[in-house]
Amino acid sequence: MAKSRVATVTLGLLFLLVASVHAQSAPDPLPSWNDGSAKQAIIKFVTATTTTGNPAFVAPGARFATFDQDGTLWVEQPMYTQVVFALDRVRVLAAEHPAWKTTEPFKSVLANDDAAMAKFTMKDLEQILIATHTGMTTGQFTAIVKAWIATARNPRWHRPYTDMVYQPMLEVMRYLRANGYRTYIVTGGGQAFVRTYAQQTYGVPPEQVIGSALETQFTYNAAGEAILMRPPKLLINNDFSGKAEDIYLFLGGPPQAAFGNAAGDRQMLEYTDSGGKDALMMIVMHDDAVREYAYGPANGLPASKIGTFPQSLYDEAKAKGWNVISMKHDWKRIFPFEQ
Amino acid sequence: MAKSRVATVTLGLLFLLVASVHAQSAPDPLPSWNDGSAKQAIIKFVTATTTTGNPAFVAPGARFATFDQDGTLWVEQPMYTQVVFALDRVRVLAAEHPAWKTTEPFKSVLANDDAAMAKFTMKDLEQILIATHTGMTTGQFTAIVKAWIATARNPRWHRPYTDMVYQPMLEVMRYLRANGYRTYIVTGGGQAFVRTYAQQTYGVPPEQVIGSALETQFTYNAAGEAILMRPPKLLINNDFSGKAEDIYLFLGGPPQAAFGNAAGDRQMLEYTDSGGKDALMMIVMHDDAVREYAYGPANGLPASKIGTFPQSLYDEAKAKGWNVISMKHDWKRIFPFEQ
Repeated sequence: MAKSRVATVTLGLLFLLVASVHAQSAPDPLPSWNDGSAKQAIIKFVTATTTTGNPAFVAPGARFATFDQDGTLWVEQPMYTQVVFALDRVRVLAAEHPAWKTTEPFKSVLANDDAAMAKFTMKDLEQILIATHTGMTTGQFTAIVKAWIATARNPRWHRPYTDMVYQPMLEVMRYLRANGYRTYIVTGGGQAFVRTYAQQTYGVPPEQVIGSALETQFTYNAAGEAILMRPPKLLINNDFSGKAEDIYLFLGGPPQAAFGNAAGDRQMLEYTDSGGKDALMMIVMHDDAVREYAYGPANGLPASKIGTFPQSLYDEAKAKGWNVISMKHDWKRIFPFEQ
Repeated sequence: MAKSRVATVTLGLLFLLVASVHAQSAPDPLPSWNDGSAKQAIIKFVTATTTTGNPAFVAPGARFATFDQDGTLWVEQPMYTQVVFALDRVRVLAAEHPAWKTTEPFKSVLANDDAAMAKFTMKDLEQILIATHTGMTTGQFTAIVKAWIATARNPRWHRPYTDMVYQPMLEVMRYLRANGYRTYIVTGGGQAFVRTYAQQTYGVPPEQVIGSALETQFTYNAAGEAILMRPPKLLINNDFSGKAEDIYLFLGGPPQAAFGNAAGDRQMLEYTDSGGKDALMMIVMHDDAVREYAYGPANGLPASKIGTFPQSLYDEAKAKGWNVISMKHDWKRIFPFEQ
């Protein structure tokens, strides 16, 4: 009896030791996340959908997760990065367009008139986008964006825009990829713009970037080689309903997980939710005015025209069991460059 | 001296033996291809682009090959399979549309009037496509196609259409995939149609099918769940220039290899050729009237409205060093079911 009890105790200790060693040897896949319901939901989702025999199991080739970019993967305040790019391009191109000095909306841009720019209509922005994003080959546009993004700096942190990515979200993307998921960016921003840096910044290759896209026009250069021009004609407006429709266009069905932060992500989240009861829907809530920004108007945060997170989307998330990520409470660390 | 000579001879014999065993143990990746310039070009391309240190080396994640479907991967005569599907659907749906019995183009379809159908205009075909391909959810359309393709039979071979695939091309796709290439179908046919069987038939998953596509329309069903409807509005016409433009839309640049057979593949081949001097461009020439069909009018073959292969494309291929595959001479075997 005594011997057997000792053996049992020893076995129990051994088990505890092994379990503890095991726990220590499996590194936390999400070290920048505080323990809480958001982190637990991600780990639970990955475990369930990748465990053979689990009713939620998804075959490796069919694992897809989609991420909005602006406000979900990187900072979108005080202005979308691609709009900053467009305004910078107006300044560069002004030398070739003397009339811009006296013609709106270019005049306000060249005068750095922030008050006037804040009042730009959709038509003003469209004029600026046409002037800065069209009329060149696809290769020329890529080269222009690459040169800009290598030198431009975020005004608050004085760092490259590609540094303004959220460390916790990079960890989620890596964790998903390590478990056989393909991580797609599904952005209202320009597909050609985001593709220039997505591989290096997020580990997302060009074919996994779904974004708003111009038509392209096949033609030949002087040497008779095939080229694609960028005419001023929008093919895909990848925002709101467009996100769901374009995920279907590219993937043929809903992903198993989707991450967004604003009204424009609602339909992507709903489409993901339609795929089955084990789907994961998450919304990043910007509620940390000290470390980043705080805006809503969901949850009583200050309203914002950039990345609007309406109360109705917050309420829908709560009603449907989607996860709202609090940057303030769920994230230990915001940016990779922080220590 | 004598001893050393014996040792050398023995080593030489051993080397020959080992080399011979090695040659026997490496199975031919393209057993249904006769030895010739086409087969050699494929093997040379794969070897060069996947050998580290070779100037033509392509990183594994960036390896893409695109394949036209009709006439390149499966039989397109006497009529594109998707058109057969549409005509069959007219017959099924006729009960709900009594007026069709007396209204063209439906009247001719229901009367099985081949002569009249052969004269259908683009507008006639468009009316038939709208009546048979639109007005339902994406899920409903997929179910309709799956049910049809499981039972429909090719009129000449009396086999499922998904049996009418070219064994040599299946081998090329497998060989490419075994070497890290992702094989995409780039078809003038409907993306939603082809996606229903591409995985099982070709080993190509839905996200690697680029095809002509309708817009979809995000909305909600009675239960409040997200659904996508198929309105009668074409978003992408994936043929001719569209193939190059849509490859850019989906991939962000040209593939390293492209396979086609008709005028509609010209721009895809040219776009692939623009990617670099090591790219592989191949055209399937239907010159085997006994085992399959013979049509051109390239190379003096009988002209065909279906899968037209014009002399100008043949001449371009020869001038640019693209490879023309002769079904008659390059392929030992046409279909998987042959022995």
